[in-house]
Amino acid sequence: MGSRSEERRREVLRRLEELGKTVLEQIKEGKSPHIDIPVRSLSNIEFDEEKMMLKLGSKVAKRSFLNVAHTRKFMQTLLVAAFAKELVEQNLHTSLRDMYYALKRTIPGTKENTFEEQTESDAVVVDIEVAKDILREEMHLNADVRGRVVGDVTIIDRGDEVDWSKLGSGGWAIPSNVEDIEFKEVNADYILVVEKNAAFERMHEDKFWKKENMILITTQGQAARGVRRLIHRLAFEHNLPVIVFTDADAYGWYIYSVIKWGSMNLAHVSDKLGTPQAKYVGLTISDIDKYHLENYTIKAKDVDIKRAKELLNYPWFQKKEWQRELQLMIKKGYKAELEALSSRGLRFMTQTYLPEKIENKEFLP
Amino acid sequence: MGSRSEERRREVLRRLEELGKTVLEQIKEGKSPHIDIPVRSLSNIEFDEEKMMLKLGSKVAKRSFLNVAHTRKFMQTLLVAAFAKELVEQNLHTSLRDMYYALKRTIPGTKENTFEEQTESDAVVVDIEVAKDILREEMHLNADVRGRVVGDVTIIDRGDEVDWSKLGSGGWAIPSNVEDIEFKEVNADYILVVEKNAAFERMHEDKFWKKENMILITTQGQAARGVRRLIHRLAFEHNLPVIVFTDADAYGWYIYSVIKWGSMNLAHVSDKLGTPQAKYVGLTISDIDKYHLENYTIKAKDVDIKRAKELLNYPWFQKKEWQRELQLMIKKGYKAELEALSSRGLRFMTQTYLPEKIENKEFLP
Repeated sequence: MGSRSEERRREVLRRLEELGKTVLEQIKEGKSPHIDIPVRSLSNIEFDEEKMMLKLGSKVAKRSFLNVAHTRKFMQTLLVAAFAKELVEQNLHTSLRDMYYALKRTIPGTKENTFEEQTESDAVVVDIEVAKDILREEMHLNADVRGRVVGDVTIIDRGDEVDWSKLGSGGWAIPSNVEDIEFKEVNADYILVVEKNAAFERMHEDKFWKKENMILITTQGQAARGVRRLIHRLAFEHNLPVIVFTDADAYGWYIYSVIKWGSMNLAHVSDKLGTPQAKYVGLTISDIDKYHLENYTIKAKDVDIKRAKELLNYPWFQKKEWQRELQLMIKKGYKAELEALSSRGLRFMTQTYLPEKIENKEFLP
Repeated sequence: MGSRSEERRREVLRRLEELGKTVLEQIKEGKSPHIDIPVRSLSNIEFDEEKMMLKLGSKVAKRSFLNVAHTRKFMQTLLVAAFAKELVEQNLHTSLRDMYYALKRTIPGTKENTFEEQTESDAVVVDIEVAKDILREEMHLNADVRGRVVGDVTIIDRGDEVDWSKLGSGGWAIPSNVEDIEFKEVNADYILVVEKNAAFERMHEDKFWKKENMILITTQGQAARGVRRLIHRLAFEHNLPVIVFTDADAYGWYIYSVIKWGSMNLAHVSDKLGTPQAKYVGLTISDIDKYHLENYTIKAKDVDIKRAKELLNYPWFQKKEWQRELQLMIKKGYKAELEALSSRGLRFMTQTYLPEKIENKEFLP
């Protein structure tokens, strides 16, 4: 573990202890113990125009032990915080599901269980994230895992030196937790993030990342926390532009949106997971016309149109370029997949489409 | 590419050419051209008791150009075979979806499209697999991708030497196509295949694969073709036992079943994807009692019971140990996840449960 992460580890421990100490002091002073938890409902989510990120507002709720409506959650909060402290102290990682099983028990002398459903312990983890401004990964609670990466980058991870340019056809499987990774050498002009693994494999086979001197990442669908955090760290710590490449549909654009601005249910950690400097290279609805892909589009379903209309109203999609694209999609009534580019030949994507658009900086903001 | 794969590549080309040549000869002889395709419907799927694998029976259907009901499929078969031949010749890989887009067009002078839906081209790929006994991966058509691996193994892939023991917390992302991988050094006593990534990460963190001198693979749900083929190749080429570890439910047991005996819709390639020597270590329903996990079980839903009853009737689940387990699950009416073991402590799985069961060879067949 590098010194950066060792320092942060101590800080995380300090904050978790602080939570317990505050409660202890309140009890000693004869007060009803409580914990302050920022409100995470939609009413408290804002779009920060300056930082270009979703964030939480300033509303805070008190969780009191002696309020019968809060007692159960109060108990759960302390259980989870104590468990996380133990994980960090022992340098042990686990999943949310494991934690749920590890903490579930019947309270002696009662018929009451500490937790009935995993949703209860999951929610408490987010409460602690927000209240103490620590990432779930920093509490050693691992998230879902998806995504792979290749590029001219050498990292140090758990004592191993891993060279992302020498991994054959497979690439490095991005773990759920990238907090402790150290970037030893990063030779790249930018990061290209692609939604689909098929496109990733095609580009990897053509050594497109080498020709372009970039880091190639696939999210394999909606970006998992580990991937978002990896993109964020690379972009910020190494000052790299980020280019995102998804299907031309509302689902693909939302993947972009989450990478760039953050997501609503994780608005409290946008500053650690979001990458506002990201740009969108395609596929756009305008591309369909420009590159003669009309015969390879898919008729949009009602749900596609509905979703596009929702995006139209999000504050972070108000730039005129996005408004035009979204309107165009609704008007044309079709969407298209990355694979549509293969109708122009299997190497069209790596030899024509992407090099042209990236060279000319034809991006959406 | 090793000489093994170069030789096989020429054989694949020869078989694809053969398909076209046969048709050409039939035309020259003034016959109605046809292609013989083995029947893949359930009526032609058998369980080979000796080889312990699902396989296709001997029924074959004629696909004739001059039979109006066959003409379209006949044309599609030749299109796909020609496309695959080109891929192999150019040493280019792509996905099924890309191929669909690349081959879809309107036949000049008509309003007829070569393909309307991807299901059509997907089906033709399987027809060619069966008719010519070549894997889809050998035609350079890549499958879905999932799964990661760590262990004391060095492979050569696309000229890179990749050491699976030095990949930090991430592991090697198993690609969709593992045909061309060469195993340079394999130091392992067995392969442990685990369904869930969370368990994989837990074991990886404890360096469990090092202590046990084994190769650790996670399928991340149902095993993708790439993972099944990798397990098969390691097991057969290096004579390694395979141990499978899944949730105690019908879905987990079916993952085991597919790794070991093959699946019904891919019965024609069981001999290349199946690994009959695989054994099942857990989680079993009997474990729940033995390891005091009753409080961490989940009530089985109707669909779980229904699925368990189906497994009871499969010829390949007739061994008495499996019959007992399946009956027990139906009787108890519960299932359990790997994470239930965490109720006994986060290291219970790697320090007690697995070492004990593996040491004592407590496996289901």
